[in-house]
Amino acid sequence: MSALRYDVLGIGNAIVDVIAHADDDFLVKQGMQKGTMALIDEARAQAIYGAMGPAVESSGGSAANTIVGAASFGARAAFVGKVKSDELGHAFAHDIRAAKVAFHTKPASHGPSTARCYIIVTPDGERTMNTYLGAAQNLRPDDIDAETIASATIVYLEGYLWDPPQAKQAFVKAATIAHDSGRQVALTLSDAFCVDRYRSEFLDLIRNGTVDILFANERELLSLYETADFDAAVTALRGDAALAVVTRSEKGCVIVTRERTEAVPAASVDRVVDVTGAGDLFAAGFLVGHSRGKDRVIAARLGALAAAEVIQHVGARPQISLKALAEQNQLLS
Amino acid sequence: MSALRYDVLGIGNAIVDVIAHADDDFLVKQGMQKGTMALIDEARAQAIYGAMGPAVESSGGSAANTIVGAASFGARAAFVGKVKSDELGHAFAHDIRAAKVAFHTKPASHGPSTARCYIIVTPDGERTMNTYLGAAQNLRPDDIDAETIASATIVYLEGYLWDPPQAKQAFVKAATIAHDSGRQVALTLSDAFCVDRYRSEFLDLIRNGTVDILFANERELLSLYETADFDAAVTALRGDAALAVVTRSEKGCVIVTRERTEAVPAASVDRVVDVTGAGDLFAAGFLVGHSRGKDRVIAARLGALAAAEVIQHVGARPQISLKALAEQNQLLS
Repeated sequence: MSALRYDVLGIGNAIVDVIAHADDDFLVKQGMQKGTMALIDEARAQAIYGAMGPAVESSGGSAANTIVGAASFGARAAFVGKVKSDELGHAFAHDIRAAKVAFHTKPASHGPSTARCYIIVTPDGERTMNTYLGAAQNLRPDDIDAETIASATIVYLEGYLWDPPQAKQAFVKAATIAHDSGRQVALTLSDAFCVDRYRSEFLDLIRNGTVDILFANERELLSLYETADFDAAVTALRGDAALAVVTRSEKGCVIVTRERTEAVPAASVDRVVDVTGAGDLFAAGFLVGHSRGKDRVIAARLGALAAAEVIQHVGARPQISLKALAEQNQLLS
Repeated sequence: MSALRYDVLGIGNAIVDVIAHADDDFLVKQGMQKGTMALIDEARAQAIYGAMGPAVESSGGSAANTIVGAASFGARAAFVGKVKSDELGHAFAHDIRAAKVAFHTKPASHGPSTARCYIIVTPDGERTMNTYLGAAQNLRPDDIDAETIASATIVYLEGYLWDPPQAKQAFVKAATIAHDSGRQVALTLSDAFCVDRYRSEFLDLIRNGTVDILFANERELLSLYETADFDAAVTALRGDAALAVVTRSEKGCVIVTRERTEAVPAASVDRVVDVTGAGDLFAAGFLVGHSRGKDRVIAARLGALAAAEVIQHVGARPQISLKALAEQNQLLS
């Protein structure tokens, strides 16, 4: 059995965010559904970029954001994801390593360019995402190193991995290695439309024990059980998942286990600037708390704290030390 | 004589900023002089980037920032500068065009990559810049289109253009065309070390009438006249320049003409986040006011307003409409 080298290892699409502000009219004109993630091809990517205002580029990717958040809390963290060896790929690798995350996935030397997510932030702080998967499509089972996976307390996987053709095989390989090594597997459902695309597969993963810890937001949970009734969805979830955390924006989150449902409030926020990364950073805090054996409510409060930090600025990665923030709030010592 | 198509046309190094936060210790360890711009080669660029924390990429370049600011005020604006046809070059072109600036300089298809400025922002909001000129080194007189230059009310040039080998020839060509067409030429001294590199040439440009409007900050002015005495420097400036504006950070600016010196206060600022672009945006406001025949004090107040906007967020380009801001402040109608 491998020694534990990482508290959390994430596997996900390695993406650079291209972020611009626009009003709601822009979303309507572009046929974008506010608050969701749409997959786009290269032609559509060019069309959207051409229509977008001045942008900033910032490393992103859902699981990658979570792992950077975990590292900011002081966790030992690693990430697996595929970029191309191009300028944005170099930027992605630089940024995640500069955040003290181990990142050793071999970049693609040819084929499509590094993945980009064109993010429109509306005046209410909501983000609408358009993802060109590019090189992230080429994540394969070969990119999963058994020894590395086995050395992580928790392997964290994003539902978005179901989109690239071979990434789900990488996902299943990693989950199998983790469980064979006595580790835990966490999954985020990623997006309500993503759930819509892979509902039965995600339910199988949850029901057959591939997933030990499930993260979902309210919309994703409702999509999973095809209901508009939150309480009914939570009841169904309790029957399927051993441990799940459902985030509900400013309403906080609920922790769902076989035995009980516990509600934990959101952390206070002065002004919502850009909600990109809120769910990712919530997961970061929860995973760090959980990996350290903290009470679930404390873990959820760590998550809420990290989510509150990230929505008060543009971009999906923390701009301050989450470890220091948690210490100030007496949640970590 | 060409019809007037642009209020302001800027010529400068086309640069993408790579911005990270660090404390003052980082500057000391890296041997960087706080608040200045250093030219670096590719090896040093890699070393600095490797040592820097997670960064965001945002289009920059001094004159380019000014021109984007002018466009944000509603001015008809154009920019001339050299990028490579690479990912960052595409981002630069996208961002400046998305800001409604005419940008038609042919990108380089080979040679060094698009210029990057590695900017360290310290907790006090000061920025320390390290510029790899890359493709910007290849701006040549051929990139200056006479008809375009002749169609701009003011041609704005950055002192940094003295660094790339052939850009100064492009500069002189543009200034000559502008004056032959009865247009005005403005120059910013860019940086105290830049003044140190080209002091006698800059003094010649000012004294021989190549420059109609000079922008400098206090440090640059002191460097120009090699003195520590601000009043003595202003007196010398009055003898050399027909119209100059000297910015003094929170102390506002002074407008210097043969006849008088007028002080204009800075605009109020809640919190200084990142001073990058302060001088660039001051120039934007002043040039817009001047091009519209506004009183010099009004032009300076437009500059102060734009500078105050840009230092309250990360990045060197305005994040809101400067036209709307100026209207709210009853400075433009």
